[in-house]
Amino acid sequence: MKIYGDHQSGNCYKIALVCALLEIEHEWIPVDILAGQTRTAEFLQRNPNGKIPLLELDDGRTLSESNAIINYLAAGTSLLPADRFDQAKVQQWQFFEQYSHEPYIAVARFIAKYLGLPEARRAEYEAKQDGGYKALAVMERQLQQSSFLAGNMLTTADVSLYAYTHVADEGGFELNDYPAVQTWIARIKQQPGYVSMPG
Amino acid sequence: MKIYGDHQSGNCYKIALVCALLEIEHEWIPVDILAGQTRTAEFLQRNPNGKIPLLELDDGRTLSESNAIINYLAAGTSLLPADRFDQAKVQQWQFFEQYSHEPYIAVARFIAKYLGLPEARRAEYEAKQDGGYKALAVMERQLQQSSFLAGNMLTTADVSLYAYTHVADEGGFELNDYPAVQTWIARIKQQPGYVSMPG
Ligand SMILES: N[C@@H](CCC(=O)N[C@@H](CS)C(=O)NCC(=O)O)C(=O)O
Ligand SMILES: N[C@@H](CCC(=O)N[C@@H](CS)C(=O)NCC(=O)O)C(=O)O
Repeated sequence: MKIYGDHQSGNCYKIALVCALLEIEHEWIPVDILAGQTRTAEFLQRNPNGKIPLLELDDGRTLSESNAIINYLAAGTSLLPADRFDQAKVQQWQFFEQYSHEPYIAVARFIAKYLGLPEARRAEYEAKQDGGYKALAVMERQLQQSSFLAGNMLTTADVSLYAYTHVADEGGFELNDYPAVQTWIARIKQQPGYVSMPG
Repeated sequence: MKIYGDHQSGNCYKIALVCALLEIEHEWIPVDILAGQTRTAEFLQRNPNGKIPLLELDDGRTLSESNAIINYLAAGTSLLPADRFDQAKVQQWQFFEQYSHEPYIAVARFIAKYLGLPEARRAEYEAKQDGGYKALAVMERQLQQSSFLAGNMLTTADVSLYAYTHVADEGGFELNDYPAVQTWIARIKQQPGYVSMPG
């Protein structure tokens, strides 16, 4: 199995973390977005949406979208509950991540960390703060009630939200007012097999 | 089972369509976003993220996120394949919808149809066009190869993407260059049990 990704991207890190937690062997193929490697005809053949991460099975079938990939990899393991409602809860948090969290926290971080907060994008960066804090508040409320987002077991929902939450400070987000989120981050770092995101 | 929603919203329509296709009985509780009904303490108790649609089971448990809700409702039916890879493909298309489709096509439609394309939001509206067409091109490419997005069976992935694609013209998107998307829209309208979105 091959994974096309970039270790600096939180969406790609989700896959690396699940593979580490579950000890899944894979070949990691580095893709450099800024060098245009997601825009080549060859890459678009594999993923017409032109994004990483991308999973390629040995038989050539491909799967994109970070959260779909980690759910595929985790099916049948402790990271994905078997109960129908519990599985839907995991997905609820993952869709929340893609719609109400990543577009604020990951994008603010990208503008600050990778682009160096240029004047031309400062207004956009500032506009991201509200939505990011709102997402953190929703997480805090749940994590005051349960150790992990979808209940008392670590699931792929936690991996999905951990990816950009644990580096939210790089997007200008202070976690001081979110103690349960901070405890949850520490709890995830202690999981057997945990690997950190390369700085 | 109760569904909190607004029939004018594509995200809520996804639930109505799945309930119709699968003949699932439910009580529909209308929620008026513009009147602030997603911001009341009572509603935020049910969904701290303050969004509709929201599913409430008879035992009081709640589930948010349109795509998680329809996957929950469709589990074990023909709308959701049992195979692990096929299920991941359904999710791939649904995450694509929330990240690369809805934020362009649904938002452009909202600005044009509900806000009447005010001058103050024209730049934003225009900025949405590129991303929307890019999403349509990704769909077209798949639908040139298979009758439905995740293969040759109707799945919840189709419902997720149908919701805003079939009214994309209201966001200024022309479907002339996307013949396979047009055929797919017609194919969905012919499904037994199909209900249309109230204009
Ligand atoms: N919804 C996608 C988002 C993936 C995404 O945005 N990938 C970025 C890197 S973090 C990318 O490939 N960007 C290149 C581009 O869009 O051109 C997922 O969860 O996998
Ligand atoms: N990702 C969510 C999006 C839901 C959503 O954006 N709902 C809108 C109506 S279409 C809403 O409730 N907006 C009220 C608000 O955000 O205040 C889903 O798929 O259910």
